[in-house]
Amino acid sequence: MTSPLRIGIVGLGTVGGGTLNILSQHAELLAARCGRPVVVSAISARSRGRDRGVDISRIRWLDDPLGMASDPDIDVVVELMGGAEGVARQLVEQALLNGKSVVTANKALIAHHGIALAQMAEKTGAVLAFEAAVGGGIPIIKALRDGLAANRFLRIAGILNGTCNYILTTMWEHKRGFDEVLKEAQALGYAEAEPSFDVDGVDTAHKLAILTSLAYGCAPAIDHMHVEGIRRISLRDMEFAAELGYVIKLLGITSHTEGGILQRVHPCMVAADSPLASVHGVYNAVLAEGDAVGTVLFEGRGAGAGPTASSVVADIMDIARGVRYKPFTLPVAQLACLPFSGMDNLRCSYYLRLSVTDKPGVLAEVTGIFKDERISLRSFLQHSHQPGETVQLVLTTHDTQESAMLRAMAAIAALGSVKEEPHMIRIENI
Amino acid sequence: MTSPLRIGIVGLGTVGGGTLNILSQHAELLAARCGRPVVVSAISARSRGRDRGVDISRIRWLDDPLGMASDPDIDVVVELMGGAEGVARQLVEQALLNGKSVVTANKALIAHHGIALAQMAEKTGAVLAFEAAVGGGIPIIKALRDGLAANRFLRIAGILNGTCNYILTTMWEHKRGFDEVLKEAQALGYAEAEPSFDVDGVDTAHKLAILTSLAYGCAPAIDHMHVEGIRRISLRDMEFAAELGYVIKLLGITSHTEGGILQRVHPCMVAADSPLASVHGVYNAVLAEGDAVGTVLFEGRGAGAGPTASSVVADIMDIARGVRYKPFTLPVAQLACLPFSGMDNLRCSYYLRLSVTDKPGVLAEVTGIFKDERISLRSFLQHSHQPGETVQLVLTTHDTQESAMLRAMAAIAALGSVKEEPHMIRIENI
Repeated sequence: MTSPLRIGIVGLGTVGGGTLNILSQHAELLAARCGRPVVVSAISARSRGRDRGVDISRIRWLDDPLGMASDPDIDVVVELMGGAEGVARQLVEQALLNGKSVVTANKALIAHHGIALAQMAEKTGAVLAFEAAVGGGIPIIKALRDGLAANRFLRIAGILNGTCNYILTTMWEHKRGFDEVLKEAQALGYAEAEPSFDVDGVDTAHKLAILTSLAYGCAPAIDHMHVEGIRRISLRDMEFAAELGYVIKLLGITSHTEGGILQRVHPCMVAADSPLASVHGVYNAVLAEGDAVGTVLFEGRGAGAGPTASSVVADIMDIARGVRYKPFTLPVAQLACLPFSGMDNLRCSYYLRLSVTDKPGVLAEVTGIFKDERISLRSFLQHSHQPGETVQLVLTTHDTQESAMLRAMAAIAALGSVKEEPHMIRIENI
Repeated sequence: MTSPLRIGIVGLGTVGGGTLNILSQHAELLAARCGRPVVVSAISARSRGRDRGVDISRIRWLDDPLGMASDPDIDVVVELMGGAEGVARQLVEQALLNGKSVVTANKALIAHHGIALAQMAEKTGAVLAFEAAVGGGIPIIKALRDGLAANRFLRIAGILNGTCNYILTTMWEHKRGFDEVLKEAQALGYAEAEPSFDVDGVDTAHKLAILTSLAYGCAPAIDHMHVEGIRRISLRDMEFAAELGYVIKLLGITSHTEGGILQRVHPCMVAADSPLASVHGVYNAVLAEGDAVGTVLFEGRGAGAGPTASSVVADIMDIARGVRYKPFTLPVAQLACLPFSGMDNLRCSYYLRLSVTDKPGVLAEVTGIFKDERISLRSFLQHSHQPGETVQLVLTTHDTQESAMLRAMAAIAALGSVKEEPHMIRIENI
């Protein structure tokens, strides 16, 4: 098989431009590694004129991206537009139904429609590949699907959103608040003008759903997931975390619990010497725990032209080399309907910060509530203060059932001496 | 393709036992992920009676391991005996020549004879796979070959020997000397009775040669490599390293230099906040720097039954699924004869520790020699001491050519006031 693999690229933003760059700069290297050339047969994007750092004047331009799906000179459609619906979805569906393989970086599309798309691919024998959808340049999809395929997975946990990790890192390093750092990140282009997709955990949720499906052999289940973002994280919490030996990270975590598979996205305190604690800025990391392999850590840049395009091109190369995997490891018909667990079943340690009036008896009231719920306290912090002021009371617990913790929090919130909604952050032992 | 894949396992030590365990405990899971069962058709090892934690009574036993190579009921030979020559080599050669695929964890065999074996595999269409040869459970071979295949690699650096990393970590944590910790590691089974293969860097060299060949598209070149072990590392050096903000690790490093590909295995000082600095105990880690992806870190257990068997079984699963890669990414005929560089061309920073008589003028003599070689000093340390005693003088340099550093060291060693051979450790900026 030495005939060129002909690809069509739709979407020439950051990742599309990066993909074109690698394909043109490394044409010879890729041809050697694949045993055949990879050529760009056509491109399509919103704006033809924009400078992308690579000469596109000699590449065939299609005004209608959907034309790629039936173009006789295209073997593989590379979808880099984004969005779970609209043209991106139509394009991928039509391409697969026409037997054209698809490479995409579109996590929303895969998280929402991945199974339907995998079925289309099965029907026509096309490949559907999405390494770039999770973890940017980190080859985590391939690792779960092949390198670690001999394992039952106990837990998959990751820092999957570079924007959130950048904001949390910068808040701590520069001792500034969330809103201020978010604005700066927007100015620098690290965060979108409408940031909720990132900072409310939606993007992490999409990626986690994909990792769960690969690790546990089920369809991506974005609806069976607890999702919290980082808006409520304050510098004050970070300072208490540091005092307790923790760092705050937004994690996506899937694990086996007695109640089933538990998927959750929320800020976590992780020990300062955890490998995830030292993942800074826009870096992503995934920690996979397998029953045979133990813990394996993957860390790299989670976004950007080069890293994401590295994963896009790796998928293209697999197709060029004739390497074929099922998109979700198992054939669609064999994907299990696993029981998913709610957060009630979660057992972990908790950090709780209370703003209380500084008067005798408050701590006794709070600890009484913990006693009633049989929650065992691990540590307690209260900083020096002026008499009569509102003070911050910080408590951490031993392993506790989430439902008990929520009941305790509700009872504590109702105390007259508690001035604000109690702030809880889960502590992940990782 | 739903017929079972029939494997024969030769060698039932730690890794062989672990492989049998995964194959029996996860039989159903593997069959689902591969689309066909994987069955153990026969086994062979030195001792039939030993307890391996898994029932082997119903598996066909072959007294002669070489019989596997022509056994009609075996599709894949899994070689877990070890050793670059002898029965292991014969077995792998005969199996490949008979068209049977081979999975091996044998780094010495692959580093020395990998190309000849790959040629045999090409001739008969057999697969030759060796994920378990490097990094234990870390899927680094697959990552270089597929997940990161779109990149030109600038540098590959790794902690590749768990025994050395365990010794260095324990020396520092328990404030004890090399000899003492080595003895303890031997008693615990973490180091061999004849430890030179590990502590003198030979094992790391084998693994690095394999990573180099995958990253740079050349034959493994064990002879074009500078190899130093960890015997000369003292607790005193570790203490100075800590004072300077470094940690000492044995690294295998391959990089592009002006003079060609430079492969080296030696103790390095790495910054305390480098991701490699926090790789402790028996863990391994590989840091790959690609021109598109940037830096990607892989970390996991570098040895042991579960981790290594995880990689062995992953290779078996690839074969079961019909996934085929060239063993060294490129066909053998296309592997390049790259120019390899000698250490003379290395440029890095250096740490130098001198035992000198405490009298006026010593520092002036030493710095004069550095000046003559145009070596620029970065820092200087001398601890408080009793007058008249031998004192430790520690110097670090800015980036310097190795050849200049060696000349300076020779001149310094010849000074009357220098009491012992100067001790140099390279500082790796990673």
